[in-house]
Amino acid sequence: MSASLNPIITLTTDFGQSDGYVGAMQGVILTICPSAKITHLTHNIPPQNIRVGAFVLYQTFSFYPSHTVHCVVIDPGVGSERRAIAVQTREGIFVGPDNGVLSLALAETTIRKAVVLTNPTFQVANVSDTFHGRDIFSPAAAHLAKGVPIDALGDPITDLVQLDFRTTLDAGQARIIHVDHFGNLVLDLRAQDIDDPAAATFTVGSTVITSLSRTFADVEEGELLAYTGSTRNHIEIAVRNGNAAQALDLQQGDVVQVSLS
Amino acid sequence: MSASLNPIITLTTDFGQSDGYVGAMQGVILTICPSAKITHLTHNIPPQNIRVGAFVLYQTFSFYPSHTVHCVVIDPGVGSERRAIAVQTREGIFVGPDNGVLSLALAETTIRKAVVLTNPTFQVANVSDTFHGRDIFSPAAAHLAKGVPIDALGDPITDLVQLDFRTTLDAGQARIIHVDHFGNLVLDLRAQDIDDPAAATFTVGSTVITSLSRTFADVEEGELLAYTGSTRNHIEIAVRNGNAAQALDLQQGDVVQVSLS
Amino acid sequence: MSASLNPIITLTTDFGQSDGYVGAMQGVILTICPSAKITHLTHNIPPQNIRVGAFVLYQTFSFYPSHTVHCVVIDPGVGSERRAIAVQTREGIFVGPDNGVLSLALAETTIRKAVVLTNPTFQVANVSDTFHGRDIFSPAAAHLAKGVPIDALGDPITDLVQLDFRTTLDAGQARIIHVDHFGNLVLDLRAQDIDDPAAATFTVGSTVITSLSRTFADVEEGELLAYTGSTRNHIEIAVRNGNAAQALDLQQGDVVQVSLS
Repeated sequence: MSASLNPIITLTTDFGQSDGYVGAMQGVILTICPSAKITHLTHNIPPQNIRVGAFVLYQTFSFYPSHTVHCVVIDPGVGSERRAIAVQTREGIFVGPDNGVLSLALAETTIRKAVVLTNPTFQVANVSDTFHGRDIFSPAAAHLAKGVPIDALGDPITDLVQLDFRTTLDAGQARIIHVDHFGNLVLDLRAQDIDDPAAATFTVGSTVITSLSRTFADVEEGELLAYTGSTRNHIEIAVRNGNAAQALDLQQGDVVQVSLS
Repeated sequence: MSASLNPIITLTTDFGQSDGYVGAMQGVILTICPSAKITHLTHNIPPQNIRVGAFVLYQTFSFYPSHTVHCVVIDPGVGSERRAIAVQTREGIFVGPDNGVLSLALAETTIRKAVVLTNPTFQVANVSDTFHGRDIFSPAAAHLAKGVPIDALGDPITDLVQLDFRTTLDAGQARIIHVDHFGNLVLDLRAQDIDDPAAATFTVGSTVITSLSRTFADVEEGELLAYTGSTRNHIEIAVRNGNAAQALDLQQGDVVQVSLS
Repeated sequence: MSASLNPIITLTTDFGQSDGYVGAMQGVILTICPSAKITHLTHNIPPQNIRVGAFVLYQTFSFYPSHTVHCVVIDPGVGSERRAIAVQTREGIFVGPDNGVLSLALAETTIRKAVVLTNPTFQVANVSDTFHGRDIFSPAAAHLAKGVPIDALGDPITDLVQLDFRTTLDAGQARIIHVDHFGNLVLDLRAQDIDDPAAATFTVGSTVITSLSRTFADVEEGELLAYTGSTRNHIEIAVRNGNAAQALDLQQGDVVQVSLS
């Protein structure tokens, strides 16, 4: 096994930040891999919301070194038949439940090997039935970060659960796949999907946005704009220095009218 | 003194995450012990709530290596006569105010030595009267993590303040000692306290739970269940994919009816 | 260049903790400077609120070693003509937009050199128009932490934007410059500004506080007090074990009557 001098583990969960759950995961990790650098993507995924967890990972993982282990625990099926998995890719190792939470990120990279986390050697003793984040996923992530080969953790699998993220829409519609902290609306439409950005218009409620702006300051304070966002070139809709989701009363899953010609 | 190659300091406070308070503590720690790994249990303890702080520490500390320093600052008596203490145990070193916030964790391990933090050598210059987290507890934790023997920090004491955590209840009752981020209710009743788990029933409001489940997926979505939780085998009550505290309008300190036969 | 063995980068943003934005910044930093210790001051600055960001930095930076790089991204003008800057001082290196968010801290130390971040060598490839935290500020901070001299990042400047923090008030008034997590009110008045602290009185609404207390426990629970706070000796007003901002319905920018004689 080849240990990294600077092992990195990212954590993404729906555990919130008011209990000791994330703290316990960090303790397990540092016990196994004392040199690990633990970074937190977020622990504020809405409870059991696999789609939001998948989006945050998709938004972030490519900015990390390829030896990074991304441990994602949004796990409503904990203790049931759902599988716990680890996936080695060209751009990092992913650990989490096989419920689709990893699938959006995995679709952006190249899978090299996936295994089911069944080897008790790489779990804590006395695995609980309700907290595999601490008892199965954290120790797996720590051992992988330390250089244990992925094969050691369990048998290979190839049939990973896919999240059906992109709902088919009528032409002329785009779905809001994420609402960020600022209330900016991330659409399931990327700049590269648009032939003539100059001709694109977006209709949200009674407001028509007739062109793509470059950045917030291109419009007046309080005005709506559409622009190519920082997340993999997805188009976003925002209110400059305001909150578009609140102003327009829109949320994840809602649909925006788009005219591309 | 014997310094650890990978010193770990955990922080637990009621300081929230919107000011520079936790940032200042980290600066003090990294100035004294540059190699310290700082991990955060939580900073969202409700202001001045010693009981919740004590619970999160109790829930978490055992998952850390025994050289870890746990620094806990829920300190409504800051600047008054309450003592600042450090406690060396079999499973870690604890630093905090002597108001009971450490006592629930200490009861689960073996105390080797306790001291009052009076030596100004291990405090910042110009100690403030309202922020001992930064001026006394952080430097103490950093020096201990660096290997300074606990005796150097102050005189030994043995009469630590105990939190009266387990209220005596009538037979047939259990108290909710913690409500977690998901709204799960942690009872002051552990699996090992129950002779015949198969016979246990729990009555919350008008709902009777007639058996212990193993995990959430054992019941339908939205249904109540009781199960042996991941925190030291305490029994918990939850709603699958829901929030039991909200659904039942229950909070920390409330009482649940239990029949164990 | 002289690399530190323990490079430290602090992050302060208004990005919140529910997206992958801060996670992406950390990935960029750890890719460039694998040994960096990243500490978070706060990511909960109210969106676009430069004043609160400036205050938290002012409150905190002096507790860090002088080789620390403080990266502050409250950046409503991202992608516009506002400059991105780095500033080397006697007590740390500061990186952020030139919109005044650094100026309150800079006024407390000695500036040695300031530059505009224009050298693309020290930016990510394909800089976005809306997320310079990830694409310009994080890589600049990481390269500086790694030991790259500040001159390499861009041309020197001297005309930094100053935040007009201290509004001139009539004698007998003090402004609330910050409301902390506990609801404590930090006044724009420092202990060293008061000749005779024993004679000072503070009038908030219908309540008169007739003397400075030392700490919270000097008054009864629920009572108002004024005291020299832990942030650079600014006077604060609090309710013991309560929330003064809520109790008095006061917020940042509001004015308190002060009599100093």
